[in-house]
Amino acid sequence: MADDCIFCKIIKGEIPSNKVYENDKVLAFLDISPVNPGHTLIVPKRHSINIFDIEDEDLFEMNKAAKKIAPIIMQAAKAQGINILVNNGKVSGQLVMHSHLHIIPRLSDDGLKHWSHKKYNSGEAENLLKEIKKLMK
Amino acid sequence: MADDCIFCKIIKGEIPSNKVYENDKVLAFLDISPVNPGHTLIVPKRHSINIFDIEDEDLFEMNKAAKKIAPIIMQAAKAQGINILVNNGKVSGQLVMHSHLHIIPRLSDDGLKHWSHKKYNSGEAENLLKEIKKLMK
Repeated sequence: MADDCIFCKIIKGEIPSNKVYENDKVLAFLDISPVNPGHTLIVPKRHSINIFDIEDEDLFEMNKAAKKIAPIIMQAAKAQGINILVNNGKVSGQLVMHSHLHIIPRLSDDGLKHWSHKKYNSGEAENLLKEIKKLMK
Repeated sequence: MADDCIFCKIIKGEIPSNKVYENDKVLAFLDISPVNPGHTLIVPKRHSINIFDIEDEDLFEMNKAAKKIAPIIMQAAKAQGINILVNNGKVSGQLVMHSHLHIIPRLSDDGLKHWSHKKYNSGEAENLLKEIKKLMK
């Protein structure tokens, strides 16, 4: 629980939300500024910032709730696909510093563009992998 | 295990990959066409298509591995944030029909744009919520 956290206030009911689903570990509610209609946020009730400090239990409950409600949101929004997105850190687009998972319904004609993919230069991937392995130890 | 699945072949070692991490449930390897260097895919070893059919255990193990390796990838890639993305269904950008989670390192100057957010028309969110609640029963 963080005093100045807007999602903690939504969880406590101090700020209203369009609740989609709730259990004792998580709350899911409609994003007020959706990428597409039906865009839903799932938040663990216990405050954490993001992937870097979330408890395993909350990480699991957030994803289990996503699995449960994604097909329902897809049907209600008459969508054909779902993006699940978790932004970690301001640079990644995280706006509220309380762990949250986006469920974004996708339609074949929604026009949303995906990030383009690049190629590694020769040796670049191998060097990066060496660095990762060193840090993994 | 699906015979014609490229990720099943990577898991079996029939197709080489730059392995980042492996345990008995999941494999993580560098995406050969990264959005940013260090872009990593985590796949459950047991074949499933996406969020609509994955077993709870594999969903959890995939995310637990993401939690474990995200800080390491961020450090190795000299990034300041991480997007976690799971595409479900062709319309959402899913290209390989074997469950996979993208870890995308983000840098403050990478220039990647996020999808714009809209506003609901009056009554639109409430109607959608009614439809969701009906399907949730």
